[in-house]
Amino acid sequence: MNPLAPDWLAEPDDANDLAAGVWPDTIRRTKKGELSVGGMKASALAERYGTPVLVLDELHVRERAERTRRAFETAAARHGGSARVYYAGKAFLTSEVARWMLAAGLNIDVCSRGELETALAADVPAERIGFHGNNKSVSELERAIGVGLGTIVVDSPIEVERISAIAERLGTSQRVLVRVRSGVHADTHDFLATAHEDQKFGFSLEEAESAVARIRELPSVEFVGLHCHIGSQIFGVSGFRESASRVLELHERLLGGGPVPLLNLGGGFGIAYTRADTPAEIEALADGIVDAVANECAARGIDMPELAFEPGRSIIGSAGITLYEVGTTKPVVVDTGDGSAERLYVAVDGGMSDNVRPALYGAQYSARIASRTSEAPAALVRVVGMHCESGDIVVDNEYLPGDVVPGDLVAVASTGAYSAAMASNYNHVPRPAVVAVRDGEARVILRGETIDDLLARDPGLVR
Amino acid sequence: MNPLAPDWLAEPDDANDLAAGVWPDTIRRTKKGELSVGGMKASALAERYGTPVLVLDELHVRERAERTRRAFETAAARHGGSARVYYAGKAFLTSEVARWMLAAGLNIDVCSRGELETALAADVPAERIGFHGNNKSVSELERAIGVGLGTIVVDSPIEVERISAIAERLGTSQRVLVRVRSGVHADTHDFLATAHEDQKFGFSLEEAESAVARIRELPSVEFVGLHCHIGSQIFGVSGFRESASRVLELHERLLGGGPVPLLNLGGGFGIAYTRADTPAEIEALADGIVDAVANECAARGIDMPELAFEPGRSIIGSAGITLYEVGTTKPVVVDTGDGSAERLYVAVDGGMSDNVRPALYGAQYSARIASRTSEAPAALVRVVGMHCESGDIVVDNEYLPGDVVPGDLVAVASTGAYSAAMASNYNHVPRPAVVAVRDGEARVILRGETIDDLLARDPGLVR
Ligand SMILES: Cc1ncc(COP(=O)(O)O)c(C=O)c1O
Ligand SMILES: Cc1ncc(COP(=O)(O)O)c(C=O)c1O
Repeated sequence: MNPLAPDWLAEPDDANDLAAGVWPDTIRRTKKGELSVGGMKASALAERYGTPVLVLDELHVRERAERTRRAFETAAARHGGSARVYYAGKAFLTSEVARWMLAAGLNIDVCSRGELETALAADVPAERIGFHGNNKSVSELERAIGVGLGTIVVDSPIEVERISAIAERLGTSQRVLVRVRSGVHADTHDFLATAHEDQKFGFSLEEAESAVARIRELPSVEFVGLHCHIGSQIFGVSGFRESASRVLELHERLLGGGPVPLLNLGGGFGIAYTRADTPAEIEALADGIVDAVANECAARGIDMPELAFEPGRSIIGSAGITLYEVGTTKPVVVDTGDGSAERLYVAVDGGMSDNVRPALYGAQYSARIASRTSEAPAALVRVVGMHCESGDIVVDNEYLPGDVVPGDLVAVASTGAYSAAMASNYNHVPRPAVVAVRDGEARVILRGETIDDLLARDPGLVR
Repeated sequence: MNPLAPDWLAEPDDANDLAAGVWPDTIRRTKKGELSVGGMKASALAERYGTPVLVLDELHVRERAERTRRAFETAAARHGGSARVYYAGKAFLTSEVARWMLAAGLNIDVCSRGELETALAADVPAERIGFHGNNKSVSELERAIGVGLGTIVVDSPIEVERISAIAERLGTSQRVLVRVRSGVHADTHDFLATAHEDQKFGFSLEEAESAVARIRELPSVEFVGLHCHIGSQIFGVSGFRESASRVLELHERLLGGGPVPLLNLGGGFGIAYTRADTPAEIEALADGIVDAVANECAARGIDMPELAFEPGRSIIGSAGITLYEVGTTKPVVVDTGDGSAERLYVAVDGGMSDNVRPALYGAQYSARIASRTSEAPAALVRVVGMHCESGDIVVDNEYLPGDVVPGDLVAVASTGAYSAAMASNYNHVPRPAVVAVRDGEARVILRGETIDDLLARDPGLVR
C-alpha cells in the first residue's frame, strides 16, 4: 500500500478489473484483454474518432431511464398514486439523448434556451418539457410559453408577473410550479438542515405561500405544485424525507386555497465514481422516498399528489467513459512526513477542458488501461491532463499496472454526466466527440471540434 | 455593515465608485452616471453586442505589455544584463491580442497546438514563440519544430527523445529549456517551500541535471536554460527570490558542462480583483526579482543569464470587464448564528459558463452598476448567474446600491484573463463575444456564439 493513497482506495489484487457499478453495463475485456463497450473495442474507437473521445453506452442509458421511470411509477402505484420522471438535460443533452428519453417514457427538464431548443428540435412534445432556472429571460419565457411548455418552475416574484404578462399577451395559460428552499441541503450520505438557506434558488417556505396566493389570483397562470431540489450525488433517502416533510407542510396549507396536484422533489441520486461509492439501487431510493411522502401525507390526512423527479446523473453518468491516450509518464518522489514515496504521474491528451469536475469539485474518478491488460504490479498513479495548470487532474488517485506507458489507452469511468456538458476550450483545446455505442456499432451524437472550429471565432484570421 | 460581509469588504461610502487599480485604465462615469470604457458607453456596448459581453480596454492591455517589457529590460540592464517577456497566451489569446503583444515588443508563450496555430495565423514569427506543457503530442512537436519555434520547454525525459528524433528527421536543431520543480509554490502573499513537489510539471532539481546532460549529448537539441514557474496571482517577490536561488544553484552546476544563456522564471504576477488586493507595481516586482537574481549570481560568481518572464494575467486581467444585465433580484434572509441578516441575490444573464473562476477557485471579484449611478444606501449583494447550480456565483461579496433592479447593467471587473479563455457551454449557454474598445470605437475580437452554433455540433438535428 502506497502511503500517498487515500484511505478509501485499497490496493487492488488486479489493477485490470472493472469494479461493479462503476463502469457501463456492456463493458468487457476482449480475449486479448482490451476493453470493449457496446461491442466496440477501445482501439477501434480511438482510431476512428481520435482521443480523447467520450463513449456512451446507449443500452445502459436507455435501461437506466426505463428503470428509473418504472421504479418511481411502481413505488407510487403501491400507494395508489402516480409519478413521472424528467431527465435533467443539464447532465448531458443532445437530440439523440432526448429521443432515448422519450422512448423510455421520460419527460425532459431543461434550464435554458439552448436546452429548450435542443429538446424542441429533437421533436420532444412541448407538454413533456419542464423549464426551470433562477433567471429565465423574458425572451426565453416567451418562447417557452409560446410553444405550450408543460410546466415552468417559477423562481422569484418577478417571474410570476412576467409569466402572467406573457401568457396573457399570448392568450394562453401557463402551468407553473413554485420552487422552494426547504432548508435541507443533501450531499452524498448526509444532509444539513437550516432554517434559512443562503442560496439563489427559489422561495423560502414562508415566501412561497404568498407567491402561490398571487399566482392563484392571476387568470393566465395555473399553480400546479411545489418544486424542491436538495442537492446532487446523494446516496440515501434521509435528506429527501426531511425535505419532503417540510415541503408537505406547506403543500397541505396550500390545499386550503385550491388544488395542488403535483409535487416535484428534484433529482440528485448518486452514482459510483469509484468502488468506494455505494449508492442504493434506484428501486430502493424510489421506494424509500415515495414511502416517506406517502407516510407524511397519511399522517396529515391528505391525498398524495402526483410526484415528479428530475434525475440526470443517475441515468447517464455511469454509461459514459472517456478514452485518452497516454503521452508521458513520470514518477514523482513526494515527502510523506516520515520518509518519501513515489507517485506515478500519467499524462493524457485531455484534461480539465473535457472534464472539469476534478478541478471544480475535487471529484474522484476511476481509470483502467483500456488497450491491454497487464500483470505488472500495481502502482499508485495520478492521471493528469495536458493543460497548463497543476490542478489539471483527471483521476486523482488510482492504482494502475505499473508498466503503463505512452501509447496506452486509458479509460476513465462515469464521465457520462457533467463532463461534455461542462467542457471548455481552455488552452485552445478542441472539445472531443461524444459517440454512442451499441451492438458493435458507433455513431457520433455530438461532433468533436477541430482547431479550425476554434479559429473560426477569431475574426482577425482570414483563412 | 452587514454581518454576512467578509472582513476584507468594507461598506463603501459610495457604492458607485471605481476602486483604483481594479478597473480598466479608461473606465469613466459619463455625465449621466453611466460607465464608459475605451470611450464606449456600457449601454451602447450592450445594445450592439448583447449581454453578457466581455469588453477589453485595448490601450490598457498594450500599455501593460509595453510597461512590463520595459520594467524587466530596465531592471536587467542595471545589472548589465538583458530580459525578455513572453505573453502567456493561456490567459486570453486571439490574433488581435497576439498582434498587440508583438507591437509592444513581447514574445508569445503557447501551451497547445491551438494556441500555437492562433499565434502563427496572426503572423507571430516562429522564433518569437515559446512552447511549453507537460504532455505535448508528437504531432504538436512536429509542427512546432517544423516551423522553427524559438524555444520549447521540455517537461519529461521522453520528450527530450521525441524532440531529438523529430528535429533530426527534419534536419534541424531545436532550442530547449528544461522545466524544473523548484519546490517553491507561491500563492498571493506567501510561499511554501518543500523538498519535493507533488505535481505534474517538470523535473526535480536532481533529475534536471541528467536531463540536461542527455540533451547535451544530442546533436539536434540545444540546451539554452532552465524554466521554472511557481504559481499565479502572486503579490510579492519572496517566492521568486527563493525559487531563483534554488534554481541558480543548479544553473551554476550546469555551467560546468557548457553555456546556459537563459533563465525563465515564469509568470504569475498578481492583479487586484477587489480593493482588498494590493499587488505591487510591475516595476517594483521586476526590480525585486531581477535584483535577487543578480545578487545570487554575484554571490556565486557567475554571469547573470538572460532572463525571461511569462506573465499573462498581469497584462490583460484588469483590462477586461464583463457587462451583464440583471434579470431578477431576491433578498434572502440568512441565519448569522446570533440573529439573521439579509443578502440581496442579484441574478445576471451569464455566470459560470462565461467565468468559471469563482466556482473553480473561489475567486473574488468586484462589481458596479454600469448603466447608472444611484444614491440608494448600499446593500450587500451576491451577484449570481443563470446556471442551474448553487455554486454559480459571479461576484460572491459586493456592496451595490440597494435599488439595483432588473434591467440594470452590471459590470464585473478584472475579467480579462482566464474568463473567456475557460468559458464553456454549460447548460447550453452560448459564449459571449469579446470586444476590444479604444477611442470610442469597438470591434469584436472573438465572436460570440449563437444557439445555432451549439446545435450545429448535434448531427441528429437536421435544420
Ligand atoms: C433543479 C434540478 N433538478 C435536477 C438536477 C439534476 O441533478 P442530478 O443530475 O444530480 O440528478 C439538478 C442539478 O443540479 C437541478 O438543479
Ligand atoms: C508555465 C506558465 N507560465 C506562465 C503562466 C502565466 O501565469 P499568469 O497568467 O498568472 O501570469 C502560467 C500560468 O499558469 C504557467 O503555467
